[in-house]
Amino acid sequence: MIIKPKLIKGTRDFNSIEIKKREYIINIIRSNFELYSFEQINTPAIENLSTLSESYGEEGDRLIFKIINSGDYLKNISIDNKTNYKNLLSKISKKALRYDLTIPLARYVAMNQNNIVFPLKRFQIQNVWRADRPQKGRFTEFLQCDADIIGSKSLLLEIELIQLYTSVFKNLNLPITIKLNNRKILLGICEHVGESDKFNDLTIAIDKLDRYSFEKVQDELFNKGFSKLSIIKLKRLFDFRESSFQDKILFFKNIFSNINVGMEGINEVEYIFSNLNGIKNIDFDIKLARGLSYYTGTILEVVCNNVNIGSIGGGGRYDNLTEKFGLKNISGVGISFGLDRIYLVMEELNLFPKILTHSSNFLFLNFGDNFLNESLKYASILRENNISCEIFPDNIKLSKQLSFANKKNIPFIIFIGDNELKNNDIVIKDMRNGNQQNVNKNKFLSTIIEINKNNG
Amino acid sequence: MIIKPKLIKGTRDFNSIEIKKREYIINIIRSNFELYSFEQINTPAIENLSTLSESYGEEGDRLIFKIINSGDYLKNISIDNKTNYKNLLSKISKKALRYDLTIPLARYVAMNQNNIVFPLKRFQIQNVWRADRPQKGRFTEFLQCDADIIGSKSLLLEIELIQLYTSVFKNLNLPITIKLNNRKILLGICEHVGESDKFNDLTIAIDKLDRYSFEKVQDELFNKGFSKLSIIKLKRLFDFRESSFQDKILFFKNIFSNINVGMEGINEVEYIFSNLNGIKNIDFDIKLARGLSYYTGTILEVVCNNVNIGSIGGGGRYDNLTEKFGLKNISGVGISFGLDRIYLVMEELNLFPKILTHSSNFLFLNFGDNFLNESLKYASILRENNISCEIFPDNIKLSKQLSFANKKNIPFIIFIGDNELKNNDIVIKDMRNGNQQNVNKNKFLSTIIEINKNNG
Repeated sequence: MIIKPKLIKGTRDFNSIEIKKREYIINIIRSNFELYSFEQINTPAIENLSTLSESYGEEGDRLIFKIINSGDYLKNISIDNKTNYKNLLSKISKKALRYDLTIPLARYVAMNQNNIVFPLKRFQIQNVWRADRPQKGRFTEFLQCDADIIGSKSLLLEIELIQLYTSVFKNLNLPITIKLNNRKILLGICEHVGESDKFNDLTIAIDKLDRYSFEKVQDELFNKGFSKLSIIKLKRLFDFRESSFQDKILFFKNIFSNINVGMEGINEVEYIFSNLNGIKNIDFDIKLARGLSYYTGTILEVVCNNVNIGSIGGGGRYDNLTEKFGLKNISGVGISFGLDRIYLVMEELNLFPKILTHSSNFLFLNFGDNFLNESLKYASILRENNISCEIFPDNIKLSKQLSFANKKNIPFIIFIGDNELKNNDIVIKDMRNGNQQNVNKNKFLSTIIEINKNNG
Repeated sequence: MIIKPKLIKGTRDFNSIEIKKREYIINIIRSNFELYSFEQINTPAIENLSTLSESYGEEGDRLIFKIINSGDYLKNISIDNKTNYKNLLSKISKKALRYDLTIPLARYVAMNQNNIVFPLKRFQIQNVWRADRPQKGRFTEFLQCDADIIGSKSLLLEIELIQLYTSVFKNLNLPITIKLNNRKILLGICEHVGESDKFNDLTIAIDKLDRYSFEKVQDELFNKGFSKLSIIKLKRLFDFRESSFQDKILFFKNIFSNINVGMEGINEVEYIFSNLNGIKNIDFDIKLARGLSYYTGTILEVVCNNVNIGSIGGGGRYDNLTEKFGLKNISGVGISFGLDRIYLVMEELNLFPKILTHSSNFLFLNFGDNFLNESLKYASILRENNISCEIFPDNIKLSKQLSFANKKNIPFIIFIGDNELKNNDIVIKDMRNGNQQNVNKNKFLSTIIEINKNNG
């Protein structure tokens, strides 16, 4: 049976040019992580399902890819036509694919707590997988680049993470805005409008204010049981959003005069802003809610000013992440770069440096077994001198070999034929202008080194 | 409920030092791939199960990790207490984790056949997953580094791949032996002993001759239906294995005088050996069979001379790999480096260069909010000048901050306190000898640059 060769929707192959462009971004992110003294760790792609479950909210749990147990996964399990897929799932699947890099970090910290010197500054650059509906900028398999600090509540870390974001995007020449908010402010708002028990519903609704009008979102809130009064109060808060930073701070300090958690959030935002010397591209945005349920303090999101593709980075503070693994009172804060969206934005704004399309400058033509030994010998000499080259593998018509060089943009061909063997020399031909030179074998290496220097 | 933080058996976390050591090996492999003009591609970790199935033999199919369909995977599927797990599997799973890098390459080639310039020389460095029982050197998640050439039958490629193996392991200072054989020789042997229909059983048995005596293996052959005569004939062939290369070639040319496929195999081996100028660490080993079912010609395996850990690399020629995807007559040949085993061997032989355990040389101490702005300012200046540093995030007892620096082997601490603010200078202290200097703020950067230069 013939299988149609195809990819899973939302996954991609990358060719060498795409890889080089991705590496260009990754190297900038990595070197900034290192300048801020983060140390790299890697965790496995597959984790115990119990490690990942119940960390990302109900929607997140649904989007985790689950792996079926090996062997006879139905052994000792009774099933019948009434078997429910959710109940069966927990019995036939114990492993899952990494959904983000934060929960694996929490698992790592809890596992290695006795050997880690806290505060831990770690970075991690690895793929994650989500069974989400793919669309522009949203993939099933995508790369996250995360920096987190575990074991300190200091707001200095928020400030440094904002500096880090700024530095990376400056290096990439990408014009961005960082949106900042605080979950404690959202909690305070819940209390203020008298709906403290509906925090999750509120954050989900607020998250939509970017795309939808307040009128549309208020219907949703009404359906979730928010009172009319609470919705009116909410509208008043979110109408305030276009005012200046100082006005917003004063407004909310007034609102939160009797609401501790809200006041804490406002004070944190004010402290961070007051220490961001010289960083201008940052907005206090109370519409920012962040989907993930584990954030407890500062939340951040990065958007590109010129391209509408959603967030290209995000993060925040989480106080209870390792509690799930029995390790209490460990606060963490971190940010993530969405490599795949940054790539799309860089492409759209034409920000990649020129990248060469061929990997080697030199192709040895193949004239058959009699000449093979010489080609192998001189190719070896080049490679020993760190010069990439290839030998055409088959002794086919010259025109086909030349066509190969042309299609692959290989600028120089090299050949050793009958005459050359006799005269002890080697021909080097520049494919772009047809110039060719006969070089004595003794001068071959030095000539190639010279050519290579001039052809980057 | 508290979840015990643990890893799935056979998977690993890597800390920054382990990552740097792995990168050391990977960079050597990658730069050699590039010297031989291979171009990198990446493929997704998850593929359609139909793409992977029936490529690796029955055992391989069993070891592929399968992913459960998202949502209600039992919808429209009738199950009862007689449902068989194998039948159900094909209905509830359509995706799987990559098992090797070769089948995804075949899928890639078939999908992109109209855009690829053949012969294609590609390399790929990515993780693969196998549901195998973990043991020393055998992991559930491990990294493969593959180089393949697709679209040429030339034996020059086998020669270059052997050169490539030699070059990488020479760069790594690892003493190795390359074992070489040819599937056509094994087919010829099958014909010679009169058991042409039992090729798979024969290769499985031969594969075991490394670990078990011929006597033990012959029982297995007998059970599989090999005749007594065929076993006697086989024993004669494998007794020959300690003789010289030329003796072996002559011996088999004689055996295969009327067996075309066997003679082809011997001629190929002879051709390859006759062009391996100067490469000595290679053995023609007729005991080599390779487990994977897709090889059709040359087969290769690399073992370390000093450490008994199984193969640290392997590969071979496959003629029909893209046929499954409807693309016929495309021959390929490739080799793989087993990064994880190479790592273990390098560790055992103490071959890694010395790698620093701290990522930055400088820690700013934290004396509280009054001094924070100055620390942030000078940390920024260092980072802008490409010097990594960190600020201790919390204003805690000095002894605890110093203990952090000690535990992390950070050689220099920097601080700006009351006196320093007054005098306009900054203290830099060498933690290793206690020497400390007060540096004027104007001289701070140049002093740090100098220190950094002397502390690598």
